[in-house]
Amino acid sequence: MRPGVNPTFIMEIIDGNQIAAAIAAELKAEVAALAGRKPCIALVRVGDDPASVSYVKKKEKTAEEIGVTSRIILPPVSITQDALFKLLDELNADSAVDGILVQSPLPKHIDEVAVFRRVAPEKDVDGFNTLNLGKVAQEDETGFVACTPAGIMELLIRSGVDLKGKHVVVLGRSLIVGKPVALLALQKKAGANATVTVCHSATANLPAITRQADVLIAAIGRPEFVTAEMVKPGAIVIDVGINRVPDASKKSGYRLTGDVNFAAVSPLCAKITPVPGGVGPMTVAMLMKNTVKAFRLAHAR
Amino acid sequence: MRPGVNPTFIMEIIDGNQIAAAIAAELKAEVAALAGRKPCIALVRVGDDPASVSYVKKKEKTAEEIGVTSRIILPPVSITQDALFKLLDELNADSAVDGILVQSPLPKHIDEVAVFRRVAPEKDVDGFNTLNLGKVAQEDETGFVACTPAGIMELLIRSGVDLKGKHVVVLGRSLIVGKPVALLALQKKAGANATVTVCHSATANLPAITRQADVLIAAIGRPEFVTAEMVKPGAIVIDVGINRVPDASKKSGYRLTGDVNFAAVSPLCAKITPVPGGVGPMTVAMLMKNTVKAFRLAHAR
Repeated sequence: MRPGVNPTFIMEIIDGNQIAAAIAAELKAEVAALAGRKPCIALVRVGDDPASVSYVKKKEKTAEEIGVTSRIILPPVSITQDALFKLLDELNADSAVDGILVQSPLPKHIDEVAVFRRVAPEKDVDGFNTLNLGKVAQEDETGFVACTPAGIMELLIRSGVDLKGKHVVVLGRSLIVGKPVALLALQKKAGANATVTVCHSATANLPAITRQADVLIAAIGRPEFVTAEMVKPGAIVIDVGINRVPDASKKSGYRLTGDVNFAAVSPLCAKITPVPGGVGPMTVAMLMKNTVKAFRLAHAR
Repeated sequence: MRPGVNPTFIMEIIDGNQIAAAIAAELKAEVAALAGRKPCIALVRVGDDPASVSYVKKKEKTAEEIGVTSRIILPPVSITQDALFKLLDELNADSAVDGILVQSPLPKHIDEVAVFRRVAPEKDVDGFNTLNLGKVAQEDETGFVACTPAGIMELLIRSGVDLKGKHVVVLGRSLIVGKPVALLALQKKAGANATVTVCHSATANLPAITRQADVLIAAIGRPEFVTAEMVKPGAIVIDVGINRVPDASKKSGYRLTGDVNFAAVSPLCAKITPVPGGVGPMTVAMLMKNTVKAFRLAHAR
């Protein structure tokens, strides 16, 4: 914690790295206690997209730390959709594999949604299968929640935020963040039970709506879009954006920024997630949590 | 149309009977033009609950008017869940059946959600299968939308209401109305594109939120819950409630009322649906629309 500008509350930075590390430690203890073979995740990366290479490496490394076995599968960028389906069918049928992740983005000749649907729902640790999305709406806990929205909920819970009766405003209606996190915040279970508003590019008078948010979740992929005028003093702000903006002062030529103008908004907030180090690290932690869950569900059948 | 109290607009009653009749007439023409066998819906009613008897009768009658074949299946109230599953499996496998509706409520010894999941997704004209719910979130038009939320959207479109940029406030987060209608209003397609807020029993300061609604959809099952103070002048109000309240002046001993206090709220509105005769008739019309769609999809495969 560090003091904020507004004297009525202390602004707190929500440390995603620390919370993700705590989850990893819990999972490591859980996996260590398992008799027999360990949970196994298949990581499928098509081609050599540099961002995908780095994401899959991070997932492999985290799996290893926790004691989850990972099986890395690297089909060439030229793989046909049918061949990729065949590969997934084999993984679906393989009882030694608990979870399957197909790293996005896929080459343009492959229908990404069709691929996500091909992954068996009970191994869909990424939570992108249509059936698992339906289960989020149904509040059916046997399903898998997509890692980013699941990570947002976990960040809030572990930061002591109870959403009950609070007004959550979600900026963005994407299938992988906006819609599922809205459905999660609406659920009747403990920690959720929020009133939820979803805004997007067609929303009229956006600042008047976002200023009502007790908890504002920004997931639109527009660098520093959320300004101080859009935030109510004392709000909790969750920044899901990971945008690369050119920056000549950096060796890489760019810097990472979120969807929130952190410098302007953070002094107003009760709590805020930074970018990087906020929601990002949670995604991999939740992927591992889903993999251990898939293992347990498979062994309970 | 009839004049409202507020001089700046004319209040219009949205006539659900008329709109449902227009849809039925369109479907009748569409079905008449089909060569070969007609679309067929299996209507499964377990036991003799009086409301279910009357609902299934209405569905059968509407099917007949349109030219859709209906197959009425009346298992006894004592049927086991396994026997009901077996019956559904047979209907799922029967190529002469396009749509299957299992009338709710089911007896307490049967898991309703499990039954809805047993209906094959491609015959799930009620739209309650988990996969079809996921497809609503995915904006995948190959799925089936549950009849009440689909009917609400159709009522709005056929009443000349374009939701784009409007603030839709949904009162109620049920799986059969609140959540799917929220997802539909959020979709990127023409007629939708609304900013959507979902409120419920845990919402704080409810009137301040409902008063922001350009379109207020009440679906909580509490008679005359929505009062004039909760509605912005000029709003469009969709009343999904069908509540029986005791009324000694009626032969039946009760009268039907919606979730909205119609007498108090209607003078404020630009448009409002009555109860009965608003959303109710749309449900059966959309069931038939889904059945014809299931027939077409089956024949396109």
